Amino acid sequence: MKDETKSADEIFKEFKEHSITEFFRRNSQMLGYAGKVRSLTTIVHEYVTNSLDAAEEAGILPEIEVKVKELGENRYSVYVKDNGPGIPSKVVGKALASVLTGTKFHRYMQQRGQQGIGAGGCTIFALITTGKGIHVKSGTGKEAYECDLSIDIKGNKPLINNLTTIANTFRGLVVEGEFGDVKYEKSEHGVYEYVRRTALTNPHTTIKLVEPDGNEAVFPRSAQTLPKKPKEINPHPLGISTSDLLDFARASQSRKVTSFLVESFARVSQDKVKELASLVKDVDFEKDPKELTWSDSEKIVNGFKQVKWIAPDLDSLSTVGEKQIEVAMQNILDPKFISVVERKPKVFKGGIPFVVEVGIAYGGKAGRANGETVAGSILRFANKVPLLFDTGSCAITEAVNGIEWRRYSIARFEEEPVSVLVNVSSVYIPYSGVGKQAIAQEDEIIEEIKLAVMETGRKLQRYLSGERQRNVQESGYKTIMRYVSQLSADLEEITGKKKEETEKELRSLIERKYKNLFNEAQNES
Amino acid sequence: MKDETKSADEIFKEFKEHSITEFFRRNSQMLGYAGKVRSLTTIVHEYVTNSLDAAEEAGILPEIEVKVKELGENRYSVYVKDNGPGIPSKVVGKALASVLTGTKFHRYMQQRGQQGIGAGGCTIFALITTGKGIHVKSGTGKEAYECDLSIDIKGNKPLINNLTTIANTFRGLVVEGEFGDVKYEKSEHGVYEYVRRTALTNPHTTIKLVEPDGNEAVFPRSAQTLPKKPKEINPHPLGISTSDLLDFARASQSRKVTSFLVESFARVSQDKVKELASLVKDVDFEKDPKELTWSDSEKIVNGFKQVKWIAPDLDSLSTVGEKQIEVAMQNILDPKFISVVERKPKVFKGGIPFVVEVGIAYGGKAGRANGETVAGSILRFANKVPLLFDTGSCAITEAVNGIEWRRYSIARFEEEPVSVLVNVSSVYIPYSGVGKQAIAQEDEIIEEIKLAVMETGRKLQRYLSGERQRNVQESGYKTIMRYVSQLSADLEEITGKKKEETEKELRSLIERKYKNLFNEAQNES
Repeated sequence: MKDETKSADEIFKEFKEHSITEFFRRNSQMLGYAGKVRSLTTIVHEYVTNSLDAAEEAGILPEIEVKVKELGENRYSVYVKDNGPGIPSKVVGKALASVLTGTKFHRYMQQRGQQGIGAGGCTIFALITTGKGIHVKSGTGKEAYECDLSIDIKGNKPLINNLTTIANTFRGLVVEGEFGDVKYEKSEHGVYEYVRRTALTNPHTTIKLVEPDGNEAVFPRSAQTLPKKPKEINPHPLGISTSDLLDFARASQSRKVTSFLVESFARVSQDKVKELASLVKDVDFEKDPKELTWSDSEKIVNGFKQVKWIAPDLDSLSTVGEKQIEVAMQNILDPKFISVVERKPKVFKGGIPFVVEVGIAYGGKAGRANGETVAGSILRFANKVPLLFDTGSCAITEAVNGIEWRRYSIARFEEEPVSVLVNVSSVYIPYSGVGKQAIAQEDEIIEEIKLAVMETGRKLQRYLSGERQRNVQESGYKTIMRYVSQLSADLEEITGKKKEETEKELRSLIERKYKNLFNEAQNES
Repeated sequence: MKDETKSADEIFKEFKEHSITEFFRRNSQMLGYAGKVRSLTTIVHEYVTNSLDAAEEAGILPEIEVKVKELGENRYSVYVKDNGPGIPSKVVGKALASVLTGTKFHRYMQQRGQQGIGAGGCTIFALITTGKGIHVKSGTGKEAYECDLSIDIKGNKPLINNLTTIANTFRGLVVEGEFGDVKYEKSEHGVYEYVRRTALTNPHTTIKLVEPDGNEAVFPRSAQTLPKKPKEINPHPLGISTSDLLDFARASQSRKVTSFLVESFARVSQDKVKELASLVKDVDFEKDPKELTWSDSEKIVNGFKQVKWIAPDLDSLSTVGEKQIEVAMQNILDPKFISVVERKPKVFKGGIPFVVEVGIAYGGKAGRANGETVAGSILRFANKVPLLFDTGSCAITEAVNGIEWRRYSIARFEEEPVSVLVNVSSVYIPYSGVGKQAIAQEDEIIEEIKLAVMETGRKLQRYLSGERQRNVQESGYKTIMRYVSQLSADLEEITGKKKEETEKELRSLIERKYKNLFNEAQNES
């Protein structure tokens, strides 16, 4: 054993630091690069979400073209072109070839991207699977250029090569790269399904996919106007944490706590601050916010919880919209029943507003094929972005599976032709992983999704029980009709009245009584 | 619309960079801090795994004490003490109060930690929930000291305060911190269950848990020797990627590709290199490895796949061991049937060896309570560390649910008293997230787990079908016995022979015939 032992100095002599790029290079599965099919979808996902964000922020109706070409075994090229604002050459490197850099990280504004990792991650993945960086073409109106981008992994620094200006007529962004260890597959985790679902919740977008086999799938926009632009907002006082408050205080320019609170948070008026001050003893609201201590901050945060606040401003959130979800589900699923609900915005920790939209469809093409049978399916979206992976660890899955479906006339969710679409919109989605494929299971969010699903569920329940009753009546009707002829014959013996006449009278009698039902039955068939 | 539009320059003027600490501070759920119960378990998990790794590397039988105290609503203190080598004061800051720093990131050696994020993450979480850093006490034999640790979030730099030397008699490490937004709960996701499962797969460890209610749970070591120390190894050529090979080449001191290959990879001999060279045309094996191009590297990697290699050295892997798993499951589940299998080491991408161990238990306390009924349960471990979260996205779950249980006489896994324990050991576990609660769904790993489970499943099947047959015989036996008395009476009338005698004879006859069965039946009851 002696020689086996090691001192702390020996153990820690190898102590090293690593760059975030090295980390993700070694753990690319954490960015969503696990499995060949998923990896390809992740690449398309990162570029398409960036294109949508940029176009919308620039006020342009997005037009996106995605081309996937097979180059060899598990080797494909991905080409994504948009009509957005482009990227200035001075930041293109940091934007597409480094991580933890970007415009979105610090903003309280609803966008699809929020971490500044996605695009850089694609470049890292290209490098480790093909040794090649990516090629970019950009036109901002002011300038137009092409270049090759790579990354200095150790330093998380972008490398720009062959930067050449091009005709200033080009407007938008083209990103093109070669990737190994990927595979194109038309499965529910594949690129096609990702694009299809993106079109479903982004009706203002025209998106075209050219598949490796040359097939062109075009999803034209069904809405001709941009969704209302989400406002950049201040955080709502409800649920904000002590440490958040101190951060804002340190960053604040205000000279007094009072003005700091009014200026930094949503729904905080002078009156509200007065009310707050009366509740929060022994904190000096006249002092410099920078002098707030942790315990001051703690007291104020507790005070927040006792004041009655107006719900956060819905303008900070951009939803798909009830009408649009209904149309989209109708087109795709052609179900017998649809119910859609958009809830009021709620707040979760950090004072961050979020909204849940739910659409439920039953019958028709609803549900998903499960061998011979059909099973209930959950369509998950966050800020209108489809979530195709990590189903098990997602708040949406947790919420939908937590529903007592029996209450809504669904014996087993796993065995009925039902589709539940859930879209969570927020200025900050708490993703469970860097790959952004699942929403962390925050109680407040799960609860809100459940309430929304239950709301649609009640409507579904009414529809289904109606259905059942009708089926009962209908089969009753058919049974009677089956005996009419025999009955009439028997009556002839008893009453001497001609069978044909009796039968005719009986039929008309029954049809009068069951008229509506009969018509419905007709329409059905 | 005009005023709505924005130019690229306007959009990108807010372009910012962020430190990795800022990122995890804002996305702490990615480190496992989502939900109050889970957050508390994550803290204990990070400190306990560090303690185990350090003690084992130092060659010390681990003794760990965990104390959790309730300080207020959702506010607890966590205290973890070990008898390990301690941490030198010159690196303690980086070790416990920064991320992406550590001794483990670059090593091909099986350890529980591998990212250099866990402990720093705890300090970040303490800061954002209580504003306080952590307190550390360390004795390495050379020095002993106490200090307070915090982090400069913007710079990912550790802050050390009140560093004071203490009596050099203390040996080991004590980490103590206060955390908010956490909750102690005795659920299957709680600290108690985490410690219990840690004891299950770490028989050489004595671990004591003092719960908030003062209750002391001690799990004494059942093995008096350390597990064989895993060797630090070179990567195995099978499955290594082109970019990995180039990395090693650039770092290599060798002057020729030939010697580089022999020195950098496991199982590569001069002869193997010759064989390889004969397969890989137009790559100069005599040149400086630093001159290898991507396409050279690609050719060599493809060559690797055509050569027959010896499996990687099991010495690089430290398993729990079949015997130990059986004992542990016996103690905890007291089942009617157990089967355990340890597979041969396999390799997955990156030339990284891994081993799967599976134990299956049926009956007794096996399975998990599911309302009134019992359901099949999966006990997941990676490098002997229990995985309690993100069940849905884990390769182990995927593999076990992918088994056709009917084949093994399990009608529905969800409805039988069966427990499946799976431990995956590797120098590098591809975790799906930074929180390290699920193994990424790599095909090679899922496949290997399936094979292991099926191996135990076949034994279970034999047991269960035997059981069924016996039940049939047994009930047959009981039925006959039920009629013996009446039959004897009837026979008396026919044969005149006394009922008592006949009955005696019949009974002994039957008992002879059903002897074994009868005994078993006795033992059962």
